[in-house]
Amino acid sequence: MDLRERALKFHKDNEGKIALNCKVPVKNQEDMTLAYTPGVAEPCLEINKNPEMIYDYTSRGNWVAVVTNGTAVLGLGDIGAGAGLPVMEGKAVLFKAFGGVDAFPICLETKDVDKIVETVKLMEPTFGGINLEDIKAPECFEIEQKLKEISNIPIFHDDQHGTAVVSAACLINALKLTNKRFGDIKVVINGAGAAGIAITKLLLKMGTKDVILCDTKGAIYKGRPSGMNKYKDEIAEITNKELISGNLTDALKGADVFLGVSVANCVTQEMVKSMNRDSIIMAMANPNPEILPHLAVKAGAKVVCTGRSDFPNQVNNVLAFPGIFRGALDVHASEINDEMKIAAAYAIAGLVDEDKLRPEYVIPEAFDLRIAPKVAEYVAKAAIDTGVARKNDITPEMVAEHTKALLGQL
Amino acid sequence: MDLRERALKFHKDNEGKIALNCKVPVKNQEDMTLAYTPGVAEPCLEINKNPEMIYDYTSRGNWVAVVTNGTAVLGLGDIGAGAGLPVMEGKAVLFKAFGGVDAFPICLETKDVDKIVETVKLMEPTFGGINLEDIKAPECFEIEQKLKEISNIPIFHDDQHGTAVVSAACLINALKLTNKRFGDIKVVINGAGAAGIAITKLLLKMGTKDVILCDTKGAIYKGRPSGMNKYKDEIAEITNKELISGNLTDALKGADVFLGVSVANCVTQEMVKSMNRDSIIMAMANPNPEILPHLAVKAGAKVVCTGRSDFPNQVNNVLAFPGIFRGALDVHASEINDEMKIAAAYAIAGLVDEDKLRPEYVIPEAFDLRIAPKVAEYVAKAAIDTGVARKNDITPEMVAEHTKALLGQL
Repeated sequence: MDLRERALKFHKDNEGKIALNCKVPVKNQEDMTLAYTPGVAEPCLEINKNPEMIYDYTSRGNWVAVVTNGTAVLGLGDIGAGAGLPVMEGKAVLFKAFGGVDAFPICLETKDVDKIVETVKLMEPTFGGINLEDIKAPECFEIEQKLKEISNIPIFHDDQHGTAVVSAACLINALKLTNKRFGDIKVVINGAGAAGIAITKLLLKMGTKDVILCDTKGAIYKGRPSGMNKYKDEIAEITNKELISGNLTDALKGADVFLGVSVANCVTQEMVKSMNRDSIIMAMANPNPEILPHLAVKAGAKVVCTGRSDFPNQVNNVLAFPGIFRGALDVHASEINDEMKIAAAYAIAGLVDEDKLRPEYVIPEAFDLRIAPKVAEYVAKAAIDTGVARKNDITPEMVAEHTKALLGQL
Repeated sequence: MDLRERALKFHKDNEGKIALNCKVPVKNQEDMTLAYTPGVAEPCLEINKNPEMIYDYTSRGNWVAVVTNGTAVLGLGDIGAGAGLPVMEGKAVLFKAFGGVDAFPICLETKDVDKIVETVKLMEPTFGGINLEDIKAPECFEIEQKLKEISNIPIFHDDQHGTAVVSAACLINALKLTNKRFGDIKVVINGAGAAGIAITKLLLKMGTKDVILCDTKGAIYKGRPSGMNKYKDEIAEITNKELISGNLTDALKGADVFLGVSVANCVTQEMVKSMNRDSIIMAMANPNPEILPHLAVKAGAKVVCTGRSDFPNQVNNVLAFPGIFRGALDVHASEINDEMKIAAAYAIAGLVDEDKLRPEYVIPEAFDLRIAPKVAEYVAKAAIDTGVARKNDITPEMVAEHTKALLGQL
């Protein structure tokens, strides 16, 4: 069977991918008396007296909503909320398998930013965190921003921040191999959607000073007369200080790093040759990268990463989001801030031992069992250090152990 | 340990009662390729082409949302959306244990009818059905009515219809024991909240002609000058044709059936004595019934039912809702109509064999394994017969077998 047939069979055989698991037995009258009336009134009353007790007496603290409106599903575009459900169920499965997080898909049949914001806010008592998924730009920025302002639980748009964290992790190790530093490199990012903008911001936070973000009209710079919006205006304020204009070819001259979240084959060998020595190419367009790895290497690239599992150095969000949420949930973090994201990037990068680090291995593989416990530990530490952790009787080491236990590694 | 301590420990030991269960493995790259990108794009595209395929390729068809705003939780009243979560998780557990239905709690932090309606409608692509729970009257009526008008999936307020169905099941068998018929009896219902109004309507549908519904101001009749609302007005139009006024004591004179969804100890032995011979008393106030069973029997009642598991004849919604949703989901019913509710009542009643029927056994016990398969079968048949079933390659017998399989009885 080809991939299409295998994938359809895989989904049809079980009528989807997720079901409910009851953590308690209901075998007899006593069970029912405790799980439901009259016993269940007791935890209700405790939570009514002290809302924080909801984390003790319910499973809220381990549930994350995977929220979409189906407007930017994978590379398929606006296929509708319902048609996005297989992806959201898949995300839920990855949350559980890689982070011990219980996740539930919420597919919303609307493109109205305010309705999405209000709906998610209204559901807050049910969830420990919100993972926004496959919502198109620029609405995704506005939804995330508005939700962060009014929510008491972490709001995380994985297409932005998960991608940014894993890209940063690759870059940390690629820079080691090329003896370059964040503060000295010139980075060109192609694709000014959700991921491109988030990567730009995270790299600036991590010390990169020279970043140029490009879209289909070329380099974004302050005052560019067309194709701007308020998110690109904001980026223009903090990047491309030299106001370089022109297309991607122009921007790439002398760059140390190319980061693509754009379209297949938009980078030529000539363009790679125009970059600085020991260039780093992160060609993450899916399924076909901006340039194929062997072509990039031939043109002088030292490290090449892609989004694909059949090439070395796969930039895969699954390295980040399960552990990030695991850490955030375990300390009852009120948000997932930049420090937590950066901590996650360093946790992932740190799992590639110095003696194993080489151009074809700058990032661990998805099934490396060490990832989630380490990411969760680092994220928890950053949450505690930045004062956003509300649970104060847990240490980062305990979070790591808890993660291992949930994943059956203890 | 007393009940309070046992219940709190039960909830705290596992941090709540529900978790995610992945129906598919994620052990290696091939699994991930199928469950997530790139394979997952295939079912997305199929659903995009034909929305009905969502039932084949996702688990939507087996998920029910248990929606509350926490305004009428158990007998505790308006304790808030979050404090209601233990009950909603408990409900989810019962759905799974008794009907093989995957249910997920959605606790909404609002009392605004239209916001609840809109939120639930927006989430429709995620769920096969909606169970409204513990929302206070009269808002619950309005929410249910509005949702039914705009939804393509079943909307069922269990506090109304679950209670009505199980009450009706008891009454079917109690009438057999007393040689009375729905068409001939006088029924007095006390409590004009969600359950009382739903019971009234269902009994009328089932052929009862003489019903009086009472609230704290006494009998409801057309033109009553105070304490009315549009729901009571509607009831006044179709009940109490003789315009009997006065209090519960007055109403009960000569009645065959008392149905209480009200408060403890509001019925005296004198009142029971004033009823017709072989009276039927359904005293369902929780935890303390309107009259204790032994007192009612002494005063001449032939059959007594309560809401409690430590007395005979427990009127327990768990006899109905798991099987009702099982049947509705299996045939992709667009709604749960009166015919399906009545079918459920007869299915439940029919599980008490004629030769075992006696005043202390008019209704099966919750753990009777025959219940959900039989209820699901009858409900599916009624859905098919009334034209609300959208899946046409399944028979009621197949639904019964499917239910048994899900509950591990095959």
